Amino acid sequence: MHRFFTDPSNIHGDTIRLSEEDFAHIRVLRLRPDELFTVCDGAGADYICRLCDRDQAGIAEIVERQTSRGESAIKCHVFLAFSKSLDFAVQKSVELGAHSITIFPSDRSPPGAIKTARLQKIALEAAKQSGRGIVPAVTAEASFKHAATKAVDCEASLFCHETEKTRLKHVLDGCESVETFSIMTGPEGGFTAVEAELALAAGMTAVSLGPRVLRCETAPLAALAAVMYHTEF
Amino acid sequence: MHRFFTDPSNIHGDTIRLSEEDFAHIRVLRLRPDELFTVCDGAGADYICRLCDRDQAGIAEIVERQTSRGESAIKCHVFLAFSKSLDFAVQKSVELGAHSITIFPSDRSPPGAIKTARLQKIALEAAKQSGRGIVPAVTAEASFKHAATKAVDCEASLFCHETEKTRLKHVLDGCESVETFSIMTGPEGGFTAVEAELALAAGMTAVSLGPRVLRCETAPLAALAAVMYHTEF
Repeated sequence: MHRFFTDPSNIHGDTIRLSEEDFAHIRVLRLRPDELFTVCDGAGADYICRLCDRDQAGIAEIVERQTSRGESAIKCHVFLAFSKSLDFAVQKSVELGAHSITIFPSDRSPPGAIKTARLQKIALEAAKQSGRGIVPAVTAEASFKHAATKAVDCEASLFCHETEKTRLKHVLDGCESVETFSIMTGPEGGFTAVEAELALAAGMTAVSLGPRVLRCETAPLAALAAVMYHTEF
Repeated sequence: MHRFFTDPSNIHGDTIRLSEEDFAHIRVLRLRPDELFTVCDGAGADYICRLCDRDQAGIAEIVERQTSRGESAIKCHVFLAFSKSLDFAVQKSVELGAHSITIFPSDRSPPGAIKTARLQKIALEAAKQSGRGIVPAVTAEASFKHAATKAVDCEASLFCHETEKTRLKHVLDGCESVETFSIMTGPEGGFTAVEAELALAAGMTAVSLGPRVLRCETAPLAALAAVMYHTEF
């Protein structure tokens, strides 16, 4: 079923006012008048809808309200070092259930500006496609230190580091009742020793993702899939 | 350290005869005469090497022999339905430790021929980059049924199916001493009910990868990362 996101303020009783963009999309899809689609309020509720009469352009009639199924009880916040493969890493992180995505500059990041607006659009499309109940926010931090400080707000904060020997499984097995995780992964070439020291000083836990060298866009997916598997799959 | 693969027949005592292609690559890399690189025999051994004198073009001198670290004790065979995102799925499966990759046509696969030679090259490059001790073989099966018959040769054969409710974790928790796994994932749009019946009839175990809809290239990575996490990370 086609899926759209709306701000809760557009929901009025039994109807939802669709955005111009979504209404245009629905027309392109040539949905039949009785064909159902889902509008999610981005806060955990899915509304199964159909279009109202043609004279009420852009108004959807709510047929049924459901709790969104695409959200995990645990919240995984993903922290990605700026790299050239962010589009991919953001799309896959949303599919795999990331609750939010934070981009930060890292010592070995290539030069370039962090364009969160573009990445937020990718996150929206991935959230629609994968049936998420929220659109994960994509934001940027100004430095590694800021990112690490934010990451340790979670109950468990995992610093994925190539030279670390501690198995992720060993750490997660000790996280029985943890409900908020942060996962931080590096740029191509990995984190520097200075960054690793900063992360540990901030209170993060260094973990290994196994003996193979993962590309910078693969590491967050492996870690996120592992945490989701551990807690939910 | 740069990494190359060779056939064991090219190893003679303390030297290795490099392929023309690898020797050309080493020249492009402009390695210093004393700079080390790794040649893996694709069978679990890494040879740390340096180039011999210039007059012995293409001959590497073995400095040290090590066991390849990139191989897991368990063997995960990945079965991918033919789709348009195979390049990506093959690359990431190799990075994440797949032991072999089998491509097969599925009811909802797009039309097109399975080009294993191209995918094998992608697997070779991914194996070099990720530090694998083997180059996973990429082969094709003629039908879904052939693929399912091959998949059940493994001790545990996981059929990833969107409509299944059984958690992957539940199944893996019951696979304590299993050393060979197969993971089968579908094309865009998923497997048909007929294929699901065939898979179960062949003896595969249907599993869920969580409540979100994963793209066809994401599902094998999520499943593979989960199995590797469960057994190794």
